[in-house]
Amino acid sequence: MNIAILGYGYWGPNLARNFFNLNNNCKLKLIVDHNPQRLELARKQYPNIAVALNIDDAINSTDIDCIVIALPISLHYPIAKEALLKGKNVLVEKPMTQSVEQAEELIELAIKKNTVLMVDHTFLYTGSIRKIKELIDSDELGEIQYFDSVRINLGIFQYDSNVIWDLASHDISILEYLFNESPEKIQTIAISHTKNKIENMAYLSLFYKTNKFAHINVSWSSPVKVRRIIIGCSKKMILFDDIEPTEKIKVYDTGYSIKSIDDKSKVLIDYRTSDIFIPKIDNTEALKLMCEDFINAVNNNKKPISDYSLGLKVIKTLESAEKSIVKY
Amino acid sequence: MNIAILGYGYWGPNLARNFFNLNNNCKLKLIVDHNPQRLELARKQYPNIAVALNIDDAINSTDIDCIVIALPISLHYPIAKEALLKGKNVLVEKPMTQSVEQAEELIELAIKKNTVLMVDHTFLYTGSIRKIKELIDSDELGEIQYFDSVRINLGIFQYDSNVIWDLASHDISILEYLFNESPEKIQTIAISHTKNKIENMAYLSLFYKTNKFAHINVSWSSPVKVRRIIIGCSKKMILFDDIEPTEKIKVYDTGYSIKSIDDKSKVLIDYRTSDIFIPKIDNTEALKLMCEDFINAVNNNKKPISDYSLGLKVIKTLESAEKSIVKY
Amino acid sequence: MNIAILGYGYWGPNLARNFFNLNNNCKLKLIVDHNPQRLELARKQYPNIAVALNIDDAINSTDIDCIVIALPISLHYPIAKEALLKGKNVLVEKPMTQSVEQAEELIELAIKKNTVLMVDHTFLYTGSIRKIKELIDSDELGEIQYFDSVRINLGIFQYDSNVIWDLASHDISILEYLFNESPEKIQTIAISHTKNKIENMAYLSLFYKTNKFAHINVSWSSPVKVRRIIIGCSKKMILFDDIEPTEKIKVYDTGYSIKSIDDKSKVLIDYRTSDIFIPKIDNTEALKLMCEDFINAVNNNKKPISDYSLGLKVIKTLESAEKSIVKY
Amino acid sequence: MNIAILGYGYWGPNLARNFFNLNNNCKLKLIVDHNPQRLELARKQYPNIAVALNIDDAINSTDIDCIVIALPISLHYPIAKEALLKGKNVLVEKPMTQSVEQAEELIELAIKKNTVLMVDHTFLYTGSIRKIKELIDSDELGEIQYFDSVRINLGIFQYDSNVIWDLASHDISILEYLFNESPEKIQTIAISHTKNKIENMAYLSLFYKTNKFAHINVSWSSPVKVRRIIIGCSKKMILFDDIEPTEKIKVYDTGYSIKSIDDKSKVLIDYRTSDIFIPKIDNTEALKLMCEDFINAVNNNKKPISDYSLGLKVIKTLESAEKSIVKY
Repeated sequence: MNIAILGYGYWGPNLARNFFNLNNNCKLKLIVDHNPQRLELARKQYPNIAVALNIDDAINSTDIDCIVIALPISLHYPIAKEALLKGKNVLVEKPMTQSVEQAEELIELAIKKNTVLMVDHTFLYTGSIRKIKELIDSDELGEIQYFDSVRINLGIFQYDSNVIWDLASHDISILEYLFNESPEKIQTIAISHTKNKIENMAYLSLFYKTNKFAHINVSWSSPVKVRRIIIGCSKKMILFDDIEPTEKIKVYDTGYSIKSIDDKSKVLIDYRTSDIFIPKIDNTEALKLMCEDFINAVNNNKKPISDYSLGLKVIKTLESAEKSIVKY
Repeated sequence: MNIAILGYGYWGPNLARNFFNLNNNCKLKLIVDHNPQRLELARKQYPNIAVALNIDDAINSTDIDCIVIALPISLHYPIAKEALLKGKNVLVEKPMTQSVEQAEELIELAIKKNTVLMVDHTFLYTGSIRKIKELIDSDELGEIQYFDSVRINLGIFQYDSNVIWDLASHDISILEYLFNESPEKIQTIAISHTKNKIENMAYLSLFYKTNKFAHINVSWSSPVKVRRIIIGCSKKMILFDDIEPTEKIKVYDTGYSIKSIDDKSKVLIDYRTSDIFIPKIDNTEALKLMCEDFINAVNNNKKPISDYSLGLKVIKTLESAEKSIVKY
Repeated sequence: MNIAILGYGYWGPNLARNFFNLNNNCKLKLIVDHNPQRLELARKQYPNIAVALNIDDAINSTDIDCIVIALPISLHYPIAKEALLKGKNVLVEKPMTQSVEQAEELIELAIKKNTVLMVDHTFLYTGSIRKIKELIDSDELGEIQYFDSVRINLGIFQYDSNVIWDLASHDISILEYLFNESPEKIQTIAISHTKNKIENMAYLSLFYKTNKFAHINVSWSSPVKVRRIIIGCSKKMILFDDIEPTEKIKVYDTGYSIKSIDDKSKVLIDYRTSDIFIPKIDNTEALKLMCEDFINAVNNNKKPISDYSLGLKVIKTLESAEKSIVKY
Repeated sequence: MNIAILGYGYWGPNLARNFFNLNNNCKLKLIVDHNPQRLELARKQYPNIAVALNIDDAINSTDIDCIVIALPISLHYPIAKEALLKGKNVLVEKPMTQSVEQAEELIELAIKKNTVLMVDHTFLYTGSIRKIKELIDSDELGEIQYFDSVRINLGIFQYDSNVIWDLASHDISILEYLFNESPEKIQTIAISHTKNKIENMAYLSLFYKTNKFAHINVSWSSPVKVRRIIIGCSKKMILFDDIEPTEKIKVYDTGYSIKSIDDKSKVLIDYRTSDIFIPKIDNTEALKLMCEDFINAVNNNKKPISDYSLGLKVIKTLESAEKSIVKY
């Protein structure tokens, strides 16, 4: 199984390093980038791996089985389509495409060609999210009431996607994974401070059929970096602080329950404040697990965690979120 | 100048302690509460100060010049009205009333009777908010772009007001003070987890004529306490973390400016990351300064910071926020 | 049972408030201070409690059963002696006296007069230290290996005692309480930055017969406040961070054990990194529990936690520590 | 200029990556390790660079100009000696040797052979330490009074050196760099919890002629990682917290000065609490700068920051510290 990576900018080198070091039955064969300086870096790092300036060199090569797409989002759909048409297995950076229509077309093609199509939602492979998934599935938290994420920092202003597609896509993939459910309704506030009107701050409210609620705040314009998700459940609550170097997840046995309601207007709340638990988190590099999941899907036909149907649901939610932006 | 305090529950004892210790030309004379146990506490703490079970004992007394109302919000309007009708000066807990109509009626009455009517928005008197006001007025921050507040914790579920009137009222008073401007449009998301439908989580988006934007997240249902305001300006940014014991305010010279725009779709951002400055904050108890401001208004006819017109603007915004709640 | 408090400076008001509010069979009767301004404050706060400028008014009064001494340390011994000679029960601020000789004389006197003599080591009554004592006694931590305390901040330079007697006395009382054992040998480094040569920084190393080791770092000259005790045990380790507002104690199941030793020079360590547990801490004011313990000792002859023998052991250790200061 | 790296365990790969990527007039030619599995990793990472199992292949090669020694400390002296005898330039990991005698012999040899001998004290090249050096040299801090370092975590128990040689060597190199002065007297407390008696916890007190004092606490047995240096000066104080991801250095204008001394026993302290300043830190990888400094020394005969005389002073202090351990 031979792999070509398209794009050696920000994320490409991480993918290259992981595929290069994987011991599974696969081999990194080719790195493609239109920028000769980046290719020079790739060549220096991996002298035995071929490099090319032209994407077609990867797509048309009969030697290449898997195409990994680490290009700007606007290129995801056209390049993935070409690769699928040639019968290649495709791993594409998140978000999968720029529209639901594009995503559905790619999926149809992958089914028709019987190849793997997978999206790199790396977050789902982190020890933290895997631990939270385990806690939710264990039922010890009770019913999920809300999910609240703040993902803000002084970030790079993208030119071909807004902060929702760039950052909220992480939270939306996590929500799909944890809830196994898509939102019924979305309400979005989004602000742009630049003349090209690409939004750099956004607040998403997601409503679910089962009374669950999620809120996502993303921003490229915060002086401080915050990466904090709170998951409020009827029995326990989770705090996931991704800035913390080691103690990322806290499970609070602290909460409240509604004791009784005297009449329409009064409510008696029974507060519990109890011990806090910090579970140990597996430190395996998430990207390594994602790469293995892809190789496993290709070699053993195993459905990956971050498969195309999860990828499609994320695009659906992103599209709805964007349409719901309150104009002012 | 003699003072009566109505209500000796949560906040009343703090008001009593401050008025008791003020050296200005004023005297705490009477403490009223319908609960005999609380009166017992007051009597033990202040053996020389009269206590009474009945509010009328304060309002009808010719000996009392000032009425301080620390009662549940639903009693603010009727009791303040009675007191103003008797020509008393009135200090009322925030928020001033439960509706704009009530607030306007009280203000008219105060003007007619030529007495002081003031609202206890204590936050405006903290060293932190006074320092932020000073920084904004100094012009060194540039133009304000956004205000983002998170005010969440495991809080007491009120039965006569939701989390917006309880907690967001703080941020709205701060916004009025800092911006000198009221929002043009408000969009609110609010969630209730109790059967009486009183909202315990809310997200408010406030839009201003001058392109300023504010977002407020309040909750009684968070396992962790967060008190964090970010103010993003064109030159500098402020982080106000009220949980920090001493280093509450950080001024970031870190920011970005829009360098140039090649065409409609591309934007070049010029990032600055520079030094951070933690100004010294005055530690004087805010409530003491608020009490002094009230006494000063009564004695010297000086307009207080937290005057009735600011109090009314807060009620207007709260009312608009509540009306804008997105039903789902 | 009538109580007189001597000293209404820094700690006296806290003792007065607690004894005033105690519902046990006792009554605060008299507050003494040589400073008329402080007496004025006391009179204003407690109009029904007598005040006096002269300590003899308390000691000679037949109406007073208990003398609480909140005076500078150099007055502890002479005043406590006078009070004991008059048959009063005595509660004295920590540290008990300025020398072992003085402490032993007071204890002999208390035994002879059959009165209570107790030292206010408030720390032993905090929820945190009581929880740590409970954990140690439960045996789940394994054998204690070390105790490491850092207690530094920008503090008040005392003029009649150095930082060891002022701050390390806290840690030494905690060590006596937790270990039930006094150190066999002490080695102290202490530095003075003032001309009067009173040490404002110190590092104490305490060696115990049972291989336990303790280190205490105290300072009045640190720009940041640190209050952190680590207790390393063979099975688990405790972190007590008293700056943390709510999550003060963490129990780490993280540790290491010595797996095997191949030869003289090699050692194989078996690391365990596991979950962390944050137990709930009782928030009752420690000083209230200390006051109750004193009243209980007087009324019911019950041995208090912070009794004179613990107080004496603390003085013995302080004296040894001071004698061990390495001259340079 | 051709470089050989000896040792491809923990630190070797970092050195290899940096020398490999340097654009200066130098070339990584050979990687040596006695472990074939590690050589396999090196070969995979750098297919064009030769590997060897035997150190002599590097030392005897006429093609190699520079030998980089990343071997266990007990091998530093014999291998460096061999390399210097062959006229090679030598960069050796810290600490330079296991004794002053060894270090002096190597230095003599380097002088005689006219080659570069340098020690990799990487810490001196970090943006944080360079900024602190700049602040101290600028004189705005006033006179240095003390240096207090805590460097503790759950660390790897070395078998051929104790925690002093392993961890305190960092602080001692920083002290040499910042103070330009060696301690006159050292007092050390060190504890071992293993049967081989290699100390895993230590407390070093260093006294300087000029009234400066330094304390270093190092440990492999702490449940939490602390990396905190406080530098107290007469005008300002520095806090360096290396765990902080971005705000590593704080300069406190907070301090105190001795106002006046009435008599022998009383001292009046004038406290200043003022603003805090967080300077921007250069993020260049310290190891890269160290490698460049070595290459610059070889090519341009420029004295490096971490030169052999600094390396020797560190060994002198380490040796004194070890000899001063208080036996108990």
